[in-house]
Amino acid sequence: MITVLTGGTGGAKFVDGLRRILPPEELTIIVNTGDDHDWWGLYVSPDIDSITYVLAGILSPERGWGVRGDTFHCLQGMKEFGEPSWFSVGDRDLATHLLRTILLSRGRTLSETARIIAEKLGVRSRVLPMSDQRVQTRIQTPVGELSFEEYFVKRRYQDPVKSVRFAGASESKPAPGALEAITKADAVLIAPSNPITSIGPILAVPGIRDALRETAAKVVAVSPIIGNAAVSGPAASLMASQNLSATIAGLADYYADFLDMLIVHDSDAETAHALSSNGVEFVSTDILMRTTEDKVRIANSALACALPENADVQVAS
Amino acid sequence: MITVLTGGTGGAKFVDGLRRILPPEELTIIVNTGDDHDWWGLYVSPDIDSITYVLAGILSPERGWGVRGDTFHCLQGMKEFGEPSWFSVGDRDLATHLLRTILLSRGRTLSETARIIAEKLGVRSRVLPMSDQRVQTRIQTPVGELSFEEYFVKRRYQDPVKSVRFAGASESKPAPGALEAITKADAVLIAPSNPITSIGPILAVPGIRDALRETAAKVVAVSPIIGNAAVSGPAASLMASQNLSATIAGLADYYADFLDMLIVHDSDAETAHALSSNGVEFVSTDILMRTTEDKVRIANSALACALPENADVQVAS
Repeated sequence: MITVLTGGTGGAKFVDGLRRILPPEELTIIVNTGDDHDWWGLYVSPDIDSITYVLAGILSPERGWGVRGDTFHCLQGMKEFGEPSWFSVGDRDLATHLLRTILLSRGRTLSETARIIAEKLGVRSRVLPMSDQRVQTRIQTPVGELSFEEYFVKRRYQDPVKSVRFAGASESKPAPGALEAITKADAVLIAPSNPITSIGPILAVPGIRDALRETAAKVVAVSPIIGNAAVSGPAASLMASQNLSATIAGLADYYADFLDMLIVHDSDAETAHALSSNGVEFVSTDILMRTTEDKVRIANSALACALPENADVQVAS
Repeated sequence: MITVLTGGTGGAKFVDGLRRILPPEELTIIVNTGDDHDWWGLYVSPDIDSITYVLAGILSPERGWGVRGDTFHCLQGMKEFGEPSWFSVGDRDLATHLLRTILLSRGRTLSETARIIAEKLGVRSRVLPMSDQRVQTRIQTPVGELSFEEYFVKRRYQDPVKSVRFAGASESKPAPGALEAITKADAVLIAPSNPITSIGPILAVPGIRDALRETAAKVVAVSPIIGNAAVSGPAASLMASQNLSATIAGLADYYADFLDMLIVHDSDAETAHALSSNGVEFVSTDILMRTTEDKVRIANSALACALPENADVQVAS
């Protein structure tokens, strides 16, 4: 059993690689829900959706979010009505938000909605929200406190970040099955997602970080950082806001208490060689995921690092 | 000022004729809301939507409901999710339902939502729901009591009708402005809508029928019945359920207490000539609305009957 902690965009690429090489029943994904937000009166869970869509094989490869080939006629209508339109919801995608909202209004938990929607889309891997309670990533900026989607999508992460908090985290509990998925896994993989706002909220749920420390499985992360920049998105400035250097050293520090191995880009191999002081082992390869072959190769690398005894898994070059 | 009482489909054709010949500010439409229903957690008001869309010039001419050129990708998604899909909601149309639901959840009345949505679509005529309170048309059939949409759309009006009731009507009040729109009108027109389930719910709102009796304006209806059948839909069997003959005689009886004139089809001219006992005057013409020209001609006929002194309005042949 392989358990993955992930956010949406970069994480979805990594999960896309994993789903192509693992039997679906052997894969459990614990997903960030700190970006969940109310949109047009509907409950939207962007990272759960991206992961569910990629596992179902319907994630838009061009956009990296939403459904392949979707249209945006409802969004256009809302825009013409003068309603908020900065968060792009496709027409087919809307069915997911409607169904989740209906299920929640009937008293279903967020975990149950994730399971039901995944099953209806033919997904046989397990998709778990990090928590059934509402935990909201809040970004303090000079223009005020923003939700993650306001910061990331509406304002295109242009605002300097003063700090980040996870509202509701201290009162939250891990979703049913999440702790066991970590403690009983054969391997735990941390996707190359934004450490602060994709993996950070998961780690903020009480019990999750302890489970990562305690699991007998190897915990292996793929770096979202190359040199001193993020492969994509605002990870670097968010890391700086947490007094972390936006490098593999900062990343290794952030994950140090539970991480066994960090897969970094070839160009960071020398930096990695000079580190290796805090108990984290480094492996370098080409971690950029441009093609399906890249995704499969990185997924294979991560599995090979986490399960070195597993003869079925081939270590990438 | 011209005030029209109407349902959706047939009524929308009549309103389409009127909007092409009247200044928009002179037109007030009081619309049936007995068909309103919850769909995917959203508040849907089918007749308000059809009337608003036709006034905005965006009603689908092929379907007679929904938005011209709309797509149905969300509906397809909901169908694949195994959710109810018998009520066709288009993607652009969905924006209307989302906006109305958002506005209602913020405490707006149904009248306010109708006004706001109409304004946003550029409609300058006044669209009034019959009431801000929920009045639900309920159809008793051998398979049980059905909502109007269940009876009409889901089961395609195949069930014998035992009786019809308007749940909530006795506690409802006319929407703000509705009574004045009738009592102060220069003419009141009853659209060729189903008398029982489109006009009937409006008449069931306490005060409306009295206002129609008391107004100094002429009240003129266009018949939805030709011979002993409805031009479209289940009007005939619904009239029979109310012990009315499904003819212009039954229609004149149903509206007798307030109707001044009934415009019937040429083929009913002889029948009309033999009636004219209950104070209702009859006029015959070709009342079928197949083309825009037909709609304009019928609208002109109705106005000429209601405002015979108005030189601007031409009586149709």
